[in-house]
Amino acid sequence: MDFDLVIRNGTVVTASDIWESCDIGIKDGTIIAVGPNLPAKAGVDIIDAEGAYVTPGGVDCHVHLSQVYEAGVDDLERSVVTDGAIPDLPNYVADTYDTGTRSAVAGGTTTVVTFASQMKKDESIIPVIEDYHKLAKDQSYCDYAFHVIITNPTENIVENEFPRMVEEYGITSVKLYMTYKPMRLRDYQILDVMYSARKLGITTMVHAENTDIIDWMTKSLEKKLMTHPHHHGTSRPPIVESEATNRVISLAELMDTPILLVHISSAQATKHIRDAQTRLLPIYGETCPQYMFLLADSMRKGDFEGAKCVCSPPIREDKADQDAIWAGIKNGTFTILSSDHAPNKFDHPNGKQRGLQHGNLPYGKFRHIPNGLPGVETRVPLLFSGGVLTGRVSPQKFVEVTATNPAKLYGLKKKGSIGPGFDADVVIWYPQATFKPFNLTNEMLHHAIDYTPFEGVEFKNWPRYTIIRGKVVFSHGQVVGKMGYGQFIRRGKSLLPGPRDVWLSEWRP
Amino acid sequence: MDFDLVIRNGTVVTASDIWESCDIGIKDGTIIAVGPNLPAKAGVDIIDAEGAYVTPGGVDCHVHLSQVYEAGVDDLERSVVTDGAIPDLPNYVADTYDTGTRSAVAGGTTTVVTFASQMKKDESIIPVIEDYHKLAKDQSYCDYAFHVIITNPTENIVENEFPRMVEEYGITSVKLYMTYKPMRLRDYQILDVMYSARKLGITTMVHAENTDIIDWMTKSLEKKLMTHPHHHGTSRPPIVESEATNRVISLAELMDTPILLVHISSAQATKHIRDAQTRLLPIYGETCPQYMFLLADSMRKGDFEGAKCVCSPPIREDKADQDAIWAGIKNGTFTILSSDHAPNKFDHPNGKQRGLQHGNLPYGKFRHIPNGLPGVETRVPLLFSGGVLTGRVSPQKFVEVTATNPAKLYGLKKKGSIGPGFDADVVIWYPQATFKPFNLTNEMLHHAIDYTPFEGVEFKNWPRYTIIRGKVVFSHGQVVGKMGYGQFIRRGKSLLPGPRDVWLSEWRP
Amino acid sequence: MDFDLVIRNGTVVTASDIWESCDIGIKDGTIIAVGPNLPAKAGVDIIDAEGAYVTPGGVDCHVHLSQVYEAGVDDLERSVVTDGAIPDLPNYVADTYDTGTRSAVAGGTTTVVTFASQMKKDESIIPVIEDYHKLAKDQSYCDYAFHVIITNPTENIVENEFPRMVEEYGITSVKLYMTYKPMRLRDYQILDVMYSARKLGITTMVHAENTDIIDWMTKSLEKKLMTHPHHHGTSRPPIVESEATNRVISLAELMDTPILLVHISSAQATKHIRDAQTRLLPIYGETCPQYMFLLADSMRKGDFEGAKCVCSPPIREDKADQDAIWAGIKNGTFTILSSDHAPNKFDHPNGKQRGLQHGNLPYGKFRHIPNGLPGVETRVPLLFSGGVLTGRVSPQKFVEVTATNPAKLYGLKKKGSIGPGFDADVVIWYPQATFKPFNLTNEMLHHAIDYTPFEGVEFKNWPRYTIIRGKVVFSHGQVVGKMGYGQFIRRGKSLLPGPRDVWLSEWRP
Amino acid sequence: MDFDLVIRNGTVVTASDIWESCDIGIKDGTIIAVGPNLPAKAGVDIIDAEGAYVTPGGVDCHVHLSQVYEAGVDDLERSVVTDGAIPDLPNYVADTYDTGTRSAVAGGTTTVVTFASQMKKDESIIPVIEDYHKLAKDQSYCDYAFHVIITNPTENIVENEFPRMVEEYGITSVKLYMTYKPMRLRDYQILDVMYSARKLGITTMVHAENTDIIDWMTKSLEKKLMTHPHHHGTSRPPIVESEATNRVISLAELMDTPILLVHISSAQATKHIRDAQTRLLPIYGETCPQYMFLLADSMRKGDFEGAKCVCSPPIREDKADQDAIWAGIKNGTFTILSSDHAPNKFDHPNGKQRGLQHGNLPYGKFRHIPNGLPGVETRVPLLFSGGVLTGRVSPQKFVEVTATNPAKLYGLKKKGSIGPGFDADVVIWYPQATFKPFNLTNEMLHHAIDYTPFEGVEFKNWPRYTIIRGKVVFSHGQVVGKMGYGQFIRRGKSLLPGPRDVWLSEWRP
Ligand SMILES: [Zn+2]
Ligand SMILES: [Zn+2]
Ligand SMILES: [Zn+2]
Ligand SMILES: [Zn+2]
Ligand SMILES: [Zn+2]
Ligand SMILES: [Zn+2]
Ligand SMILES: [Zn+2]
Ligand SMILES: [Zn+2]
Repeated sequence: MDFDLVIRNGTVVTASDIWESCDIGIKDGTIIAVGPNLPAKAGVDIIDAEGAYVTPGGVDCHVHLSQVYEAGVDDLERSVVTDGAIPDLPNYVADTYDTGTRSAVAGGTTTVVTFASQMKKDESIIPVIEDYHKLAKDQSYCDYAFHVIITNPTENIVENEFPRMVEEYGITSVKLYMTYKPMRLRDYQILDVMYSARKLGITTMVHAENTDIIDWMTKSLEKKLMTHPHHHGTSRPPIVESEATNRVISLAELMDTPILLVHISSAQATKHIRDAQTRLLPIYGETCPQYMFLLADSMRKGDFEGAKCVCSPPIREDKADQDAIWAGIKNGTFTILSSDHAPNKFDHPNGKQRGLQHGNLPYGKFRHIPNGLPGVETRVPLLFSGGVLTGRVSPQKFVEVTATNPAKLYGLKKKGSIGPGFDADVVIWYPQATFKPFNLTNEMLHHAIDYTPFEGVEFKNWPRYTIIRGKVVFSHGQVVGKMGYGQFIRRGKSLLPGPRDVWLSEWRP
Repeated sequence: MDFDLVIRNGTVVTASDIWESCDIGIKDGTIIAVGPNLPAKAGVDIIDAEGAYVTPGGVDCHVHLSQVYEAGVDDLERSVVTDGAIPDLPNYVADTYDTGTRSAVAGGTTTVVTFASQMKKDESIIPVIEDYHKLAKDQSYCDYAFHVIITNPTENIVENEFPRMVEEYGITSVKLYMTYKPMRLRDYQILDVMYSARKLGITTMVHAENTDIIDWMTKSLEKKLMTHPHHHGTSRPPIVESEATNRVISLAELMDTPILLVHISSAQATKHIRDAQTRLLPIYGETCPQYMFLLADSMRKGDFEGAKCVCSPPIREDKADQDAIWAGIKNGTFTILSSDHAPNKFDHPNGKQRGLQHGNLPYGKFRHIPNGLPGVETRVPLLFSGGVLTGRVSPQKFVEVTATNPAKLYGLKKKGSIGPGFDADVVIWYPQATFKPFNLTNEMLHHAIDYTPFEGVEFKNWPRYTIIRGKVVFSHGQVVGKMGYGQFIRRGKSLLPGPRDVWLSEWRP
Repeated sequence: MDFDLVIRNGTVVTASDIWESCDIGIKDGTIIAVGPNLPAKAGVDIIDAEGAYVTPGGVDCHVHLSQVYEAGVDDLERSVVTDGAIPDLPNYVADTYDTGTRSAVAGGTTTVVTFASQMKKDESIIPVIEDYHKLAKDQSYCDYAFHVIITNPTENIVENEFPRMVEEYGITSVKLYMTYKPMRLRDYQILDVMYSARKLGITTMVHAENTDIIDWMTKSLEKKLMTHPHHHGTSRPPIVESEATNRVISLAELMDTPILLVHISSAQATKHIRDAQTRLLPIYGETCPQYMFLLADSMRKGDFEGAKCVCSPPIREDKADQDAIWAGIKNGTFTILSSDHAPNKFDHPNGKQRGLQHGNLPYGKFRHIPNGLPGVETRVPLLFSGGVLTGRVSPQKFVEVTATNPAKLYGLKKKGSIGPGFDADVVIWYPQATFKPFNLTNEMLHHAIDYTPFEGVEFKNWPRYTIIRGKVVFSHGQVVGKMGYGQFIRRGKSLLPGPRDVWLSEWRP
Repeated sequence: MDFDLVIRNGTVVTASDIWESCDIGIKDGTIIAVGPNLPAKAGVDIIDAEGAYVTPGGVDCHVHLSQVYEAGVDDLERSVVTDGAIPDLPNYVADTYDTGTRSAVAGGTTTVVTFASQMKKDESIIPVIEDYHKLAKDQSYCDYAFHVIITNPTENIVENEFPRMVEEYGITSVKLYMTYKPMRLRDYQILDVMYSARKLGITTMVHAENTDIIDWMTKSLEKKLMTHPHHHGTSRPPIVESEATNRVISLAELMDTPILLVHISSAQATKHIRDAQTRLLPIYGETCPQYMFLLADSMRKGDFEGAKCVCSPPIREDKADQDAIWAGIKNGTFTILSSDHAPNKFDHPNGKQRGLQHGNLPYGKFRHIPNGLPGVETRVPLLFSGGVLTGRVSPQKFVEVTATNPAKLYGLKKKGSIGPGFDADVVIWYPQATFKPFNLTNEMLHHAIDYTPFEGVEFKNWPRYTIIRGKVVFSHGQVVGKMGYGQFIRRGKSLLPGPRDVWLSEWRP
């Protein structure tokens, strides 16, 4: 047994089990043995976990980096890609692969799945994928993969390019929007995507909000001058999400194809997903820390401070929605926990301040506030500190939703768990007894953003080491990995249940 | 007590009570007394009910007459109105006010609410209403009122013309389509209509089917050459209806406005309505006899015979759906039973035969079959014979769904019941003991259509007399009323519960 | 048309319709005509309703009079009946037929159905029925009928005496208790009753609370000295009711027999009933004004004042339960509204004060507080004033649940509505414009009880006249009827849907 | 790394992950390393898995051995224990620890949890536990633990002996019956048990059937001479189970204590459990292979052959129930799969033949047929062959419900998984490519019973090796372990979520 690195004496957690006083033996970036007292030859690197929790590196499958922005900017287009330097334009997210993945590893995340986003005018997704490859290549601190956002599912794309996307590019998931004018698909188009996705074993991610309600409410609120940041939430009550969730579940049932509902925020949408799962439909759910740890009062701070917490779906008013999200984590409705890291600067004219550039109102217009929050660095520590250490979720459930299930759902076969054959992507926490709790400030974080929505939140632990394929990339507060170490990961098909071959009429695909 | 007509010795039924051995005293078209042994002066007309049931005249609130056709004919427009003479064009229904209301009274219906249908290019609904007035005036055997079908809810129409529609024209309901290309509204447009409808106390009727699914499935089935009439049903499985039903209930909850889901056909949509009613939303449901008495095998007869039963939503495959419709009648989910009389001839090039004009297939293409069935004459007798006389529904429930609730829902204040102050619209049935059951043939009916989907059904009773405002218009199988006797009825606001002033966010209308 | 009495110019309400400016012609105690301007010969009594509401006399089907008390008094037995003079013993309710029905008519109730209660040792129910006849005969101001409470369903009783009860005595309903030691039946015994009830068309009323939970919680609370009156509620959280409700619905489904769940108080039990009705089971629900107008804080007043509001099931803590009860009235889950008039004096050693006689605690022991509230006089005005006049329920719904449905459910064929052939049992309200709202004090009431739980509640109207079979028995605040005018009413079978002949296994009755 | 045994080249499955080409290193009965190519010194035992599945040894937590019989034998008592020799009496199950555990290991089960059963007259459970220890000690081929069946929860037992049971005896679960006259508890007694169980971290298992319905139906069926074996099912329709399931979930919610519903057989009971889990109640569900692989026609074979499949709850009539059980396995409603091995011989006067000893009927009386089936040997292979190999469940789900979750639920901390620190309890399957499917006959099995309900079922694989604490006990069809090798396992508290500290009223334990 020839190791490069041995992690000693961890309380190792998988989605199922806990192995106490356990070592992890790593060779060539892969875990090749687990067990107590593994024999280490001289010269082998040793890290002593001192009995602390050792968990799989976080897999964050909803991260926007170097991307043309998802929210409602109708009039701009994808610029030429220039090695990850994000143009200072309002339709780009404000973290590159550089800053975004640096932030990821500092928060215990070892793999991100980001988005390669088709623009409506793009007649092919192949150059889109290639462009994003250029943006990410040699720029990433952690491993990464792509989902492809489909905004214009032409026959050529779904029939001819989807197979290439899967086979040549190792991309096995696409994302759709039911809202946002530049991206949204009609139900008809969603069916086109699903039809092809089913054949190819693609998982379809869906941002489910009813775009017509949002547009209508926004227009109406503006007439009433109700345009404060928190009215963003007013324009999108939970029914906006639950209606669209029910609708797209209906489409998926008709097509018998697996989907993931992204960033679910409300009780009623959660119920729709749960009911579908009860009936064994291959419907998966995602939620995010902002829906577990924040409420809508975060959007009411100051005249415009609330803009920091403007995202879609909005953070909810009602504690009952927040409770339902926690319940959904515990009872298994939510397959994965992602950050939806969609970073915009606050104090920047192309960031949240854009909301102030319209209408001569002191509190701006929520319609023009770029949607999204940064969160890739805080996701894993928030659930560990606020979930595991408070007893709200078990260590195994923490591992399941932050690492194992994301990897399974998206076909990251060697990611998301600790065990023989898995990539040695590992987080070592601090021994609990010696850790001094602290309150988060944005300066502690490693993204390019000038705020965090979780400012002031107390953390009772934090990743001490983040290890990717056997290399320490973050240690005791310092990013020690190198930009460019992160590799692109080709993905296989989902390892979670797929189509059932149950049909609603005589029609068959 | 000065009567024009006394109906003697009836078993009089209201939606609540039964009055045995009861007379009805009528003066100037109005019921002015009920009770046993009413004193009748010499010369007063007397009809002896001989103890038989006497029920309120049927109120059928879903009848298409002299109308540009609702189904998917994209390329034709409303022609000039010429006194009720329906142009021999494929986009017109095949019954005029003349033939349609003649058929109505022969089946015990005394009031119909028909449709005045805006075409998408119509920039005003006022001439539409006027045109339909011309079509109906002096042409009708029974009383009538209009719903206005809105296919293009411009700001001018919903803001300025809806108030005129209500105030000047006495029209307090509109109908929307979520499917059919020439008529369908997007959710945004539905919200525009609902917003104004709420303010004005208008009831909004909705044909709820997901148009994108239908279009997608139709295209896919045609590729597979699955275009037989019964594949019309294949293209629209129950989820098409239940999705749209859930969606429009969501819109109505958001807007806090009453809606009626028309012609509900499936268990799952019925459940959505029931659940909404449990929560006290002002959601009303309508079903039709075809969903209670027929199953999808009716579309499988012969090569093309099945086209006779092609309507939307389709008649269902699964007996469980049919059972759910019956249950919905009994437990109150369905507020009203209507015919959805949407008549097309079978053996006519602009009728059902149009389905054969495409594709050189022996069984045609279901896409081109005009949707709809005749049924205004059979609606009341079917529920009486197949419901009351079989013990499946009580006489009071029969009255409630065929007359009282339709009148209440649509603000027909003097219609729909028997009692002091109500119009003397009455059906007298045959004494049960002496009635000889018969099997229906189309020749017995009075519409202009060459078939009935209920051919061969056994009837255990039938209206013996139909009386409208104190005049006998149908007697012992003969229409004895006069064309033009029927009057237009201005309507008031719904008498059933309306908005609750419950809101889903800070937004208020 | 020869009338004894004509009521002029009422706004007459049935469960379905409203007849404005309507007269009611009455002869020999029966309504023989309704209509405007009925001709009245000279000498006929005339009452001018002045346009006010005229509603059917209240039918209160849950009234305890002259009865051995239902609550947990284990050690006492039914005494010899002595013409309605209630023994001053702790196990007797404190209103006789005299005082109770006087109170009823003063509150607009014209028929009460009271209880003839078998004691466990009674081997026959025939003498029980006879005894209660003696208690009621010549003692009642209003009409009355009996339910028989079955506490020991021997084979002889269910097989041989139930048929006699129905045929000879005109009693078509029985009541069972799932709690209270002296009365409760095991599920096995309930099945025995249901089996016979089904054959005979008997409606079975059930007091559904889980007796074991109550006993266990009471014991446990007493150990902790949590014995304040409001801990009565603590001992019986809503799950006590919802569990038993689900259980007895299961038994009724198995036996395919109609039941009424009495005095439902909580959201969850309401949901069980609603779900059963959705599936068309013949399950009926009753609630009472105390669950609509009071909350559990009424049991927290003073040291012991709260004892006034101790009843079972308890008045609920959570406004959500109260809201659910209102919703159940509106959406039809509750078939009837009854008072559950179960009167005990407060300031009497055999009344509520019994709760202070144990344990040397300043706030007594809730276990020993006789359960029950007076309410027969307030039931009808509460729903009229707090429901109809606030717009929460329609006039028709008010009539339905206070009069029409109770009469239908229990086979009171000539009661509960206004129309030809019905008994002339009528309430005339004050013209709204001229009525001066007042706040209720117990002195205004006519029962024998020294308090009302509704003390201080504002009433916006009150019955101006109560008329029974054509005689005014209450007028402008004065009881003008005579004790003994009230008659025993033999009842027929329920007029609401009964068994469905649907079975859960090969077994058939 | 010093191993006693190395298993080479397995496809190792945990409840979460699959490790391909993986070795397992075992020392002193414990797994001390997993990983490819573990170094084995000379002399170490090697087993080559040849790439086949290697799964955790089965943990069967519902096994009746050497036990006074659970079913309805009212008149017999627990005999003196004589070293595991089961008296030939009708109230004893027909497998001892010897034959039962021999059968277990031959079917891949390495730990059984059996029952120590209090008789109603036993005033202490301590001697009961001691007696069963004598029955099991030195008699078992596999490891074992005890649940204690409580049939008379006296204050002394729940207050004083439960703590001893947990602390001294390492028994952390009890089982209750809601039916069977000699064992059933009233709800009150269940609350007594739950109250103490909550304090001590005991998991309460519940056999949930409504005993009164069963008794009543049995009596009624016997009157009708409907006593064939399959009428056992007639007497216990699914509502019997669903009612009791809902009831005991209510009790558990009130007491905030975890329970396991044993041997769930029907859709409706499954729904109750699922709904409780949705609300995060600590409600766990168990089902058994007989409800997944058999239907009620198995009870209709021959005149009396059906008696072989008489168990309670009965195997169901409706495929929809069977489907719901499968769905419950897949969606996580069922925490564990157990055998409910409750063995009776068929051709033995104290076995199933007892059903023929009454009533002179050719097909006997189902009431007298001992309830229960043998199944400890077939449980694991059935789910592997009929579930994993058919694609109906994943290998991880198979492991979860047959091993990992049973161990977690019952606090078997070192059982149920493969990983460092776990006992080396392992099943090695045959390489699929080379395995020849066979049809099961009872002769192949190792129990003491003369039939199997799964006679003729095809198996596509079977355990090739069963290993307990590093020793091979079953190999290539031969039991090679020794009687007495199995050890008693002291158990800790459940590792699955327990009480939530959510209360339904002011009451607190
Ligand atoms: Zn999104
Ligand atoms: Zn996003
Ligand atoms: Zn339509
Ligand atoms: Zn129509
Ligand atoms: Zn009661
Ligand atoms: Zn009562
Ligand atoms: Zn059992
Ligand atoms: Zn068992």
